[in-house]
Amino acid sequence: MKLQNDLILRTAKGEKTERTPVWLMRQAGRVLPEYRKVREKMGGFKELVETPEFACEVTIQPVDILGVDAAIIFSDILVIPEAMGLPYQMLEAKGPWFERTIQNKADIDALHIAEGEDLHYVLEAIRLTKKGLNGRVPLIGFAGAPWTIFSYMIEGSGSKTFSKAKKFLYTNPRLAHTLLEKITESTLNYLLAQVKAGADMIQIFDSWAGVLSPEQYREFSLRYITRICDGLKAETNVPVTVFAKDAFFARKDISEINCDTIGLDWTMDIAESRALIGPGKTLQGNMDPCLLYASDEVIVNETHKMLKAFGPLRHIANLGHGLYPDTEKEKVKLFVHTIKEFRF
Amino acid sequence: MKLQNDLILRTAKGEKTERTPVWLMRQAGRVLPEYRKVREKMGGFKELVETPEFACEVTIQPVDILGVDAAIIFSDILVIPEAMGLPYQMLEAKGPWFERTIQNKADIDALHIAEGEDLHYVLEAIRLTKKGLNGRVPLIGFAGAPWTIFSYMIEGSGSKTFSKAKKFLYTNPRLAHTLLEKITESTLNYLLAQVKAGADMIQIFDSWAGVLSPEQYREFSLRYITRICDGLKAETNVPVTVFAKDAFFARKDISEINCDTIGLDWTMDIAESRALIGPGKTLQGNMDPCLLYASDEVIVNETHKMLKAFGPLRHIANLGHGLYPDTEKEKVKLFVHTIKEFRF
Repeated sequence: MKLQNDLILRTAKGEKTERTPVWLMRQAGRVLPEYRKVREKMGGFKELVETPEFACEVTIQPVDILGVDAAIIFSDILVIPEAMGLPYQMLEAKGPWFERTIQNKADIDALHIAEGEDLHYVLEAIRLTKKGLNGRVPLIGFAGAPWTIFSYMIEGSGSKTFSKAKKFLYTNPRLAHTLLEKITESTLNYLLAQVKAGADMIQIFDSWAGVLSPEQYREFSLRYITRICDGLKAETNVPVTVFAKDAFFARKDISEINCDTIGLDWTMDIAESRALIGPGKTLQGNMDPCLLYASDEVIVNETHKMLKAFGPLRHIANLGHGLYPDTEKEKVKLFVHTIKEFRF
Repeated sequence: MKLQNDLILRTAKGEKTERTPVWLMRQAGRVLPEYRKVREKMGGFKELVETPEFACEVTIQPVDILGVDAAIIFSDILVIPEAMGLPYQMLEAKGPWFERTIQNKADIDALHIAEGEDLHYVLEAIRLTKKGLNGRVPLIGFAGAPWTIFSYMIEGSGSKTFSKAKKFLYTNPRLAHTLLEKITESTLNYLLAQVKAGADMIQIFDSWAGVLSPEQYREFSLRYITRICDGLKAETNVPVTVFAKDAFFARKDISEINCDTIGLDWTMDIAESRALIGPGKTLQGNMDPCLLYASDEVIVNETHKMLKAFGPLRHIANLGHGLYPDTEKEKVKLFVHTIKEFRF
C-alpha cells in the first residue's frame, strides 16, 4: 500500500522534503491518558506488549492524538533475551528485572538463537498496526543493540555503572564475543521478520553505549551493530537508524556504517555532530525531553532554534531521549505542532 | 611544613616531574578492608564524616596502604546543603536522601549561606590529617560543583535523569540562579576555609554535569564553577582541579577558566581532549574503574597505554570515576605501582 505520508522515509534517504518530519521516542506511552486507560485494562506492561490488539491500539494512538509522522511499534528491547531463554519482568517503578542472568559459558551455551517466529506476538502486532494505519504514516520497527541487550543479560536489571557487564568484557572477552554473536544473530532474525511483517523503517537502540570507552565501544558494540545494518541492507531496502545514547565519541565511527540515520542526544552539539558525521547521513533528534516542562513560549523558541541548527536537509525531529512520563500531553502536542508548522 | 612528595602540585602547575603522579577517586573507601573496619566501628557513613579522628584515619590509610601521591580528605559533597539548612541521610545501598527538598522561593530564602566554620568537623579533620601526614604527600580538599549540589537539593536523591532539577531550570531560571548563587557563595567560603585549615589542592566535582545541554551547562554550571575558581585564585595559591563527569562537550570551555587541572573520564579520548584543551592545563584521569577487574597483565598493559597517551607532561594519573567498592585491593595496588614504576 502506498503511504500517504512518507516524509520520514524520504528524509532518511536524503531527499529534500517540504518540511521536517517528527516522531518522538516513547510517544506511545504514559504521557497519553489514552495509553494509561488501555494499560489499566491490561494489568501490566508485558501483557500489553504481548497482546497484539492492544499493542496495535497504543501504537496508533500518538498518530491520531499527537499528529506525528510515524508510528513505532509498542514493544520492548528485552523481548530478545526472553526469546533466547532469559525471561524478564517489568517491575513497577524499578524497571526490568531478570530472575536468571548470564554468568558463564554454560549459561551462554544454553541460550537459543531466536527466530522471528519466536516473537510472533510482535509480528502480529506489526501486521495489525499496518492494517490499522491504513497507509497514513510509516511504521518503525526496532530492537536493542547487542551491547545493550548483553548488559541486561549480565546485570539482570538497570544499573548506574553496568560494572558487572563491563567486568565480563574485561575478564572474559572471548566469551563476551560468543554471547554478542548469539544476540546479534537473534536480533537480525527478529528485525528481518519485522520488515517482512510490515515495518517500514528500523531503529537500533544502544541505550548503554555511553558506559564504554571509545575503544571498547568499537570492539564490543559497533562491530555488531554494523553486522545488523549490513544484514538488513542485504535483504531489505528499509532505512535504518542507529541511536547510541551518550556515545558522543562514536559519532564519526557510526557515520561509516551502513545506516541511513544517526540519533543524537541533547548533549551533542548539532553543528559539531554534522561536521563529524558529514553530509551523508540523516540526523535524528535531539531536544532535551525536559524542554517540554517549559512555558509554551520557551518550547516554541527552542524548537525553532533546533530546527534552524539542523537545517532543512536530512533532519528527522525528535527528542534526545524518550518522553518523560510526567510530561503534559498539551506540551508534547505543541512541540509536534511547532515542527510541523515550521518552514525554512 | 615542606612536603616530601609534591609531585602532584608540581604537575598541576605544569612543571616537568621525574614521573607521573597518581591518586584515585574514592581511594579512602570500601575497597580497603582497613576502611571497612573503621566504618563498622562507627556505625554509619555520616558518623565517619563527622568524627575528625576517624575521617583523618581513613584519609591517611590509602597513603600507607596503596602508596598514592596524595591524600583526599574523607568527606562528602553533601555537607554543603546540610550546612545551608537541608540535612541529608546516607541510606545503605540507596545513597543520599533528603527529607526536605527545595520547591520554591520561600525554601531558597530560608537557606543559610554557609561559612567555613559551619563545617568545623571537616576543617578539624583537615588539620588532624595534615599533622598525621607529616608532610609525606599533599592533602586534597574538595566540594561539589554548584549545579551538582543544586540537583540534589531539588531532587532529594540521586536520579537517572535529574528531570526535577532540570525542570526547575526550564520553569524557574531566575530562581535557579538565586539558589546557585547561594550555593556558590557557601562553597567558596567552605573551600577557602579548607585551604586555611591546610588543604594543598582543591578539586571541584561536577558529578551531574552530563545531564545538561552544552548551552545549559555554560549558563547553570560553568558560570558558577568559574566564580569559585576565581575566588580561590584571588585568595590562595593552591592548584584547582575541575572534574565535570560526562561533560565532554564542555572541555574547551573549561580550558578557559581559572583552574590548573581538568579531570577526564574514560569516554573522553586522550589525544582529542588534549587538542581541545590545549597545552595550558594539566589533565587528570582517566582509566575506566572496571579495568581493575581484569587480569594483572591487562591492567599493566592498559595502564602503560594510558600513560603513553597522556605523555610525560601535565598528567596526573587517576581513574575516570571513583573506585568501585568490589575492586580487589591488590588490583588497585598494581595500578598504582605500575604508574609509579613507569618512566618515559
